[in-house]
Amino acid sequence: VTGPATPIDRELNRWTIQSSFSVRYEVEETPDLLNPNNPKLRVPPLGDGTDSGTRLVVLDHSIDALYGPRIRRYFSMNGADVDYLALPCAEEFKSIDPVLKIVTRLNEIGTYRLSNPPIAIGGGVLTDVVGLATSLYRRGIPYVRVPTTLLSQIDVSVAAKTGINFGGYRNRIGTYSPAAKTLIDRSFLATLPDRHLRNGMGEVLKMALISSARLFDLLDEFGAELVESRFQAGETAAEVIALAVGGMAMELEPNLWEKDLCRAVDYGHSFSPLVEMRALPDLLHGEAVALDCVFSAILAARRRLIQESTLDRIVAVTRRLGLPVVHDLFLDTDLLAEALADCVRHRNGNQNLPLLTEIGRVRFVNDLTRNEIAAAVDVMKTYR
Amino acid sequence: VTGPATPIDRELNRWTIQSSFSVRYEVEETPDLLNPNNPKLRVPPLGDGTDSGTRLVVLDHSIDALYGPRIRRYFSMNGADVDYLALPCAEEFKSIDPVLKIVTRLNEIGTYRLSNPPIAIGGGVLTDVVGLATSLYRRGIPYVRVPTTLLSQIDVSVAAKTGINFGGYRNRIGTYSPAAKTLIDRSFLATLPDRHLRNGMGEVLKMALISSARLFDLLDEFGAELVESRFQAGETAAEVIALAVGGMAMELEPNLWEKDLCRAVDYGHSFSPLVEMRALPDLLHGEAVALDCVFSAILAARRRLIQESTLDRIVAVTRRLGLPVVHDLFLDTDLLAEALADCVRHRNGNQNLPLLTEIGRVRFVNDLTRNEIAAAVDVMKTYR
Repeated sequence: VTGPATPIDRELNRWTIQSSFSVRYEVEETPDLLNPNNPKLRVPPLGDGTDSGTRLVVLDHSIDALYGPRIRRYFSMNGADVDYLALPCAEEFKSIDPVLKIVTRLNEIGTYRLSNPPIAIGGGVLTDVVGLATSLYRRGIPYVRVPTTLLSQIDVSVAAKTGINFGGYRNRIGTYSPAAKTLIDRSFLATLPDRHLRNGMGEVLKMALISSARLFDLLDEFGAELVESRFQAGETAAEVIALAVGGMAMELEPNLWEKDLCRAVDYGHSFSPLVEMRALPDLLHGEAVALDCVFSAILAARRRLIQESTLDRIVAVTRRLGLPVVHDLFLDTDLLAEALADCVRHRNGNQNLPLLTEIGRVRFVNDLTRNEIAAAVDVMKTYR
Repeated sequence: VTGPATPIDRELNRWTIQSSFSVRYEVEETPDLLNPNNPKLRVPPLGDGTDSGTRLVVLDHSIDALYGPRIRRYFSMNGADVDYLALPCAEEFKSIDPVLKIVTRLNEIGTYRLSNPPIAIGGGVLTDVVGLATSLYRRGIPYVRVPTTLLSQIDVSVAAKTGINFGGYRNRIGTYSPAAKTLIDRSFLATLPDRHLRNGMGEVLKMALISSARLFDLLDEFGAELVESRFQAGETAAEVIALAVGGMAMELEPNLWEKDLCRAVDYGHSFSPLVEMRALPDLLHGEAVALDCVFSAILAARRRLIQESTLDRIVAVTRRLGLPVVHDLFLDTDLLAEALADCVRHRNGNQNLPLLTEIGRVRFVNDLTRNEIAAAVDVMKTYR
């Protein structure tokens, strides 16, 4: 045996491993994304920018129906080597099955570790599922994300979260895996059904309530008009997107992996996840979030954290955006208490419940009682 | 509308997000882990060290059969609130099903985000599956890992990787998610079947070849004896574990998320993954790795990177450890070329094939030809 004997101290046969991991990714608005002369969609975001191998383009069924021919023309006119997979897009399909279907296709295509990243074009369900599949394939490959609904353009663009529903719980299985690049083209909103456009306003409303009185004022004054014009033109539409997505970037960037479990962006997401799951397919995500925003505002007003007039204004703006301010399941104290209990497990033993102290600012409370929930239910009932 | 108008420059509606994430975790040898007076296993690794809620203990079937009563006594004598789940442990069961079974149980138990981390006690298949399930549950909760086979004590202890097999490919789905704490107790090896002990030696052999001439000398001189004594006593057993696990820590810590795709620890893992999958259940992981170590040494000798005498010594030591040095599937040039092609996709277009330049050191090559594979097959044939 060569070499010195390794000193062995039985007390010291112990290793501490420390390592860190950095991400850097981009979110940008890109008008005219499907114009064959626009290179943004086809150029891979990493490496030397040259394609290597077939790329998988995953579409949700509604995007495939509305934009399938334009998307195929875009890639074929660019001579890009792509393969397509279309998947259903409603919340009920957010399960392990489409994740495994995507992984199977990546295997068939022979996807590389880095240089032929898949492209996801669709709403939040589709981007969450593709995000999860790519974060698991070979323990993580990059992907490009094109959110096509207002909800996903606001809620998903900056976020690192991927996920599927499981066992009756929303996003119970998932990862943190931001897209290498997210491209926002508002022209997709031109074909979005009315209800889905209002649905997206639920997340804009949340961002206004937690981070920007100006954004709330814009919604108050121009919200209905923005819904009607589908964000297609005007300075206001651009500013609303800038404030909502920019606000999200400011909230998420310092806490991307949720090491801090006090998150202002959880506003509207404490009672709603369980309600949304139980209501399926009755409530869309942004509708459930809007209901939670209103319910939480009632809780804040009853604690005198905000004035009654502020609550009234929130309810009025929510209604004006065409979003619900009352729903049967939000009048079920037992269900709301159960939702909060799961939230407490998710926030590791604390309620960390964000409540408004004014428009644009939250505080976290940890002592909400069942009686307060019941009393808020009584207030919400009057909004029928 | 209050507040200044947000300056909107259509060219600037773009956000770059940068964030980083740190991990710190411990690996330690702990004799007498199941002694009820030893607190190591029951004290949660995070938070204030107090238990909060039921903890799930996941065992593989062989551990449950051999140690189930002692494990239950350990927790019950400590008054710990635990629930048990036993799962099959062979490579063929490393699929999505046990992952979802674990998630279902975590839901039933009401597992928190941090304070009641599950405990995995078993071989590498079990710890890989529990690692994946916990990394996905609520987008990641901590877990504690007790590898009970020699293979997993060497190969899994320091590693961040979790995974399941999919579509005929080994670990095609997985995450990087190191256990918050890994506890190694060599006394589990006392009941390990002979073949599984030799199997673990496959990974020890790999660590010796890539990082430590002294470890190789120890295997040469004491390897057979270590297998016979099952690592239960003596300075040599402790030193072999220290060198193999410590070597792994040095290799993995600077590249935990595999940003660098030139990895010395991939030695023995270029041709073997596909061969192992095709051979199931005929070859164990460490056996497939040993075959790849020998095959890669043949390639190195043919390129005159190592001397013939070094190759002969590697073959002799591998045989002496009771590991295979030839296998029908390693004589199939087509299959080996296919395995290398998948490796190239995994290493993003490069072979990055580690070959020995001496015992304890590798170099990466990117120009291996099919002819070289075929010629190495002819050499391996002579080892029958």
